[in-house]
Amino acid sequence: MNSKISEKVINRLTLYHCILSDYINKGIEFISSKQIATLLHIDDSQVRKDINMLNNSGKSRVGYIVKELKSSIEKTLGFKKTKKAFIIGAGNLGSAIANYGNFTDYGLNILALFDNDPAKIGKVVNNMKIQEVSQLPLAAKDEDVDIAILTVPGKFAQSTADFLVKANIKYIWNFTPVVLSVPDDVQVWNENLMGNFLQFTYNI
Amino acid sequence: MNSKISEKVINRLTLYHCILSDYINKGIEFISSKQIATLLHIDDSQVRKDINMLNNSGKSRVGYIVKELKSSIEKTLGFKKTKKAFIIGAGNLGSAIANYGNFTDYGLNILALFDNDPAKIGKVVNNMKIQEVSQLPLAAKDEDVDIAILTVPGKFAQSTADFLVKANIKYIWNFTPVVLSVPDDVQVWNENLMGNFLQFTYNI
Repeated sequence: MNSKISEKVINRLTLYHCILSDYINKGIEFISSKQIATLLHIDDSQVRKDINMLNNSGKSRVGYIVKELKSSIEKTLGFKKTKKAFIIGAGNLGSAIANYGNFTDYGLNILALFDNDPAKIGKVVNNMKIQEVSQLPLAAKDEDVDIAILTVPGKFAQSTADFLVKANIKYIWNFTPVVLSVPDDVQVWNENLMGNFLQFTYNI
Repeated sequence: MNSKISEKVINRLTLYHCILSDYINKGIEFISSKQIATLLHIDDSQVRKDINMLNNSGKSRVGYIVKELKSSIEKTLGFKKTKKAFIIGAGNLGSAIANYGNFTDYGLNILALFDNDPAKIGKVVNNMKIQEVSQLPLAAKDEDVDIAILTVPGKFAQSTADFLVKANIKYIWNFTPVVLSVPDDVQVWNENLMGNFLQFTYNI
């Protein structure tokens, strides 16, 4: 169960999880691999194969038990291991992420937003106060946060990354269109929107 | 050259492209595979292998010629095939994408934003006017747009997708945390932020 799961499988499992959450909201108790496959336009056998990897016992003649399948996915992907993070850059993108529905369901706990624009400091986004960025190092230490979600404009990306590294941030989820230069003990996850778009559109 | 390039390679090539754009801005003429590899914390030989796939002639003893390598990547990934798109949902996320630096460099031409909030209609985001969503079907027809970037709140995702399908949109780049149900001739590209986050954090 804790052997390495490929990125593609993780990605599909989170999509199944979205579907299951939706079914629960609608009060539907059972789901078939076929129903999941149809929604995602993928192969039925792929869905069954993915689900077989989980420690899932909730299978009945009328399909998987929605609640049990959902919780199997959560266990396998470690949703319960909550990870605390800060957002750096409280512009449109930072605010959108702060408001982005169900991150906490997936174990991402965003504690605060930081910005250097005096007009933004003190404002509240989704119950989180926007704080002056100079307060980040102390807050990171106090609250034991080592993940930063970087949503500043591209031209400030590298200097902000340097600042985060000094503040002992070890993981940067980079939403800027800039490749960051960081020391070896810091990991950057590039949310490469352009790359994704090109991947999607490569064949059209 | 036009054989299928894997998603991972496309993703890396766009990151190389970001680095090359940055080098051009800084007036640097040459780059080594080692420099690219160091920035991305990947293996040198991987970078060389990716670049060898391109139709790139600009190699010298002091490294790749930045401008030529950049244009080789653009040719291979088809940046010049411009794709027109609309953004549906002019909230924080839609506005962030409309403002997201260099999409046009990558062949994505966002023509307009649409929303149903009267307070937003007529406002301008990055030189694009926010239009009433009821005008979308005609605009899509007139301007021959079949890509929609969906950035509405999750609870309106499916109904908006239904509307887009009726308006003959064939590709939906879905930024909502909802799995959409669409006919077989419509393709949905899920920008699965939660999945990406879990992928990144799976091993920490």
